[in-house]
Amino acid sequence: MTVTSPRGFRASGVAAGLKSTGAKDVALVVNDGPLDVAAAVFTSNRVFAAPVAWSRQAVSDGRASAVVLNSGGANACTGTEGFADTHRTAEHVADTLSTSAGDVLVCSTGLIGLRLPMTELLAGVDAAASALDDPSSATRGGEDAALAIMTTDTVAKTVHVEREASDPASPDGATTWSVGGMAKGAGMLAPGLATMLCVLTTDAVVDATAAGAALRAATRTTLDRVDSDGCMSTNDTVILLASGASGVAVGTEELTGVLTEACGSLARQLVADAEGASHDVAVTVVGASSEDAAVAVARAVTRSNLFKAAIFGNDPNWGRIVSAVGTVPEDVAPYDALALDVTVNGVQVCRAGGVGEPRELVDLAAAREVLVEIDLHAGSATATVWTNDLTHDYVHENSAYSS
Amino acid sequence: MTVTSPRGFRASGVAAGLKSTGAKDVALVVNDGPLDVAAAVFTSNRVFAAPVAWSRQAVSDGRASAVVLNSGGANACTGTEGFADTHRTAEHVADTLSTSAGDVLVCSTGLIGLRLPMTELLAGVDAAASALDDPSSATRGGEDAALAIMTTDTVAKTVHVEREASDPASPDGATTWSVGGMAKGAGMLAPGLATMLCVLTTDAVVDATAAGAALRAATRTTLDRVDSDGCMSTNDTVILLASGASGVAVGTEELTGVLTEACGSLARQLVADAEGASHDVAVTVVGASSEDAAVAVARAVTRSNLFKAAIFGNDPNWGRIVSAVGTVPEDVAPYDALALDVTVNGVQVCRAGGVGEPRELVDLAAAREVLVEIDLHAGSATATVWTNDLTHDYVHENSAYSS
Repeated sequence: MTVTSPRGFRASGVAAGLKSTGAKDVALVVNDGPLDVAAAVFTSNRVFAAPVAWSRQAVSDGRASAVVLNSGGANACTGTEGFADTHRTAEHVADTLSTSAGDVLVCSTGLIGLRLPMTELLAGVDAAASALDDPSSATRGGEDAALAIMTTDTVAKTVHVEREASDPASPDGATTWSVGGMAKGAGMLAPGLATMLCVLTTDAVVDATAAGAALRAATRTTLDRVDSDGCMSTNDTVILLASGASGVAVGTEELTGVLTEACGSLARQLVADAEGASHDVAVTVVGASSEDAAVAVARAVTRSNLFKAAIFGNDPNWGRIVSAVGTVPEDVAPYDALALDVTVNGVQVCRAGGVGEPRELVDLAAAREVLVEIDLHAGSATATVWTNDLTHDYVHENSAYSS
Repeated sequence: MTVTSPRGFRASGVAAGLKSTGAKDVALVVNDGPLDVAAAVFTSNRVFAAPVAWSRQAVSDGRASAVVLNSGGANACTGTEGFADTHRTAEHVADTLSTSAGDVLVCSTGLIGLRLPMTELLAGVDAAASALDDPSSATRGGEDAALAIMTTDTVAKTVHVEREASDPASPDGATTWSVGGMAKGAGMLAPGLATMLCVLTTDAVVDATAAGAALRAATRTTLDRVDSDGCMSTNDTVILLASGASGVAVGTEELTGVLTEACGSLARQLVADAEGASHDVAVTVVGASSEDAAVAVARAVTRSNLFKAAIFGNDPNWGRIVSAVGTVPEDVAPYDALALDVTVNGVQVCRAGGVGEPRELVDLAAAREVLVEIDLHAGSATATVWTNDLTHDYVHENSAYSS
């Protein structure tokens, strides 16, 4: 159920002292091949961290043999010194694993604007590299890595999706292939990749072009549609490593399907663990003129603090939904305001832009999950964006502590 | 200090039973002339309330003799019945004041998606009309009107700005002219006019073209730059009535200046009374390539929940500022991320996109007002957007009660 579930990968996670709590904070994921195919997508934030600058360049040749990740510091807004720290980390990993620095991707997460403690970090890399070959960590390495990337997350997020080989005549006789993954992210969740770190692994035989296309397609409809608090990170990174160790050749479409399932699971896990949230809210827009229009309307609703606070209060305040819908420009999402229908947990509280069923019929207290459906009656496209409610605990977590 | 401070206006505010608290909830502002010039700006929300639809049409001829306003219900998303209610209210005011319905503007504020109780409202109009001529209300009418439009506001917002006549030879010998005003709005504060109701009055002699141009120019840099919670209302309306009763002819530029001062005061009052806020935050962007670029960057910061929660915690978390700046597309606001400076309450915590002065030097606890300055080093344009912090009380007010 982790990044080591597919064949051809090792991983580890250790405590290097970057987190004041003494929890695990440095992780390694190593691709033992035979392939070293890699693809990645990054934050679209123009203010991006040093590890993003490094990894974007390093993965541009479609190859990587390892990923080193740390929590306890984002290494963002740290200038040329911060970039040198990332470079040095990659060099150190490369020396340790006998690969080249250009094949080592780096991810960091934590507070912006602080240099990383390099002595502790590099010692952590050594410890993580040793742990890779510790027999006792063979099964636990993936779990340890998932723990080591957590910040305000309360649980580790991992996934494993397995498929029968569609071509049973694979060279080494394997009849299955799979995708494994881990992710972290509990605040600053918004597009530009749902503001998190995510490493996916697969033992499928794919080339870099297919891996890149499949990864972009899968994240577009999953991780990119988590909008917990509308805040975009400087460090978002999603990496896919392909070892080819199953010997099973997989087409782009098939890979996209499995990656979408894996990313969808991780995205849902991120929403379920969002900072301080008491509700997970799916905002589904139907009847849109295009998928982009549906996404734009859904995002406008998921970013309304008034809507999100109402959900916290178990109040199906549909006026706050339609007033958010009304902020989307007509050229982005054509619709007639007098045709809007809004359904909350199955009750159509707004019909044709006006009053529908009594809001008292809506039960929001019964379950953590809330389903909002908005019908624009302007076409046949649809999209869902996930968010959370706005709670006292969110305010507390994000005001009482720097993160 | 109210809408009745300029010559030629009467006003009143009464309790009609629309608010469950028994507080005042119906207001009238009447222009006794000699001029009946009017201009207005409205929410840009595509989902707009019945009174917005009515008033937009009624003011299109540049004339109005009265404004009727109610709290206790927004009359938004109420269909054709809701529009008929607004029409009927305007007719009733017109009959009472012996004018025509087309010269009566209507404003409503309160919960979306509920019909107004018309029996109570029309009785309230009668009471408000009677109160106009009550000698004891001659001085208090403007104050009563400002009280009657409050929703979650804790204090009434009023203003009066007086000027010497630049042309002392005015026909009736008046040597001054002035602008008075009132506004309400404590939540759902965002552009599309800072989500509030506002009535401005002036005894200057102006025509409708000048009044409209001056009003748009004044609101653009004041009320439209209050972004308390990023949520745009369905009912935003700003109305200017000109009586000409001072006999002083005023040019568009001079009128714009005084209206800007009046609207600026009202905008600042709205921020100071925003729901649950403990800090008023001015985000000023300097060194921008254009005013639009400066506004876009400032808005991105004022809409970051993480930034707003940090301010509540008195944490000068500049990483959350620059990460919000980074979300603005390059074609909207060109800048180099490695050139950004950020100053919080006078301390330059971020310099050239990296670490500046120690954040410990920033004192946020000492005052309610917080000043954030972001230098893009990309030009000479500047703009300020006001917002508030994200607090437990904001969440409480907007989750525990429908509004």
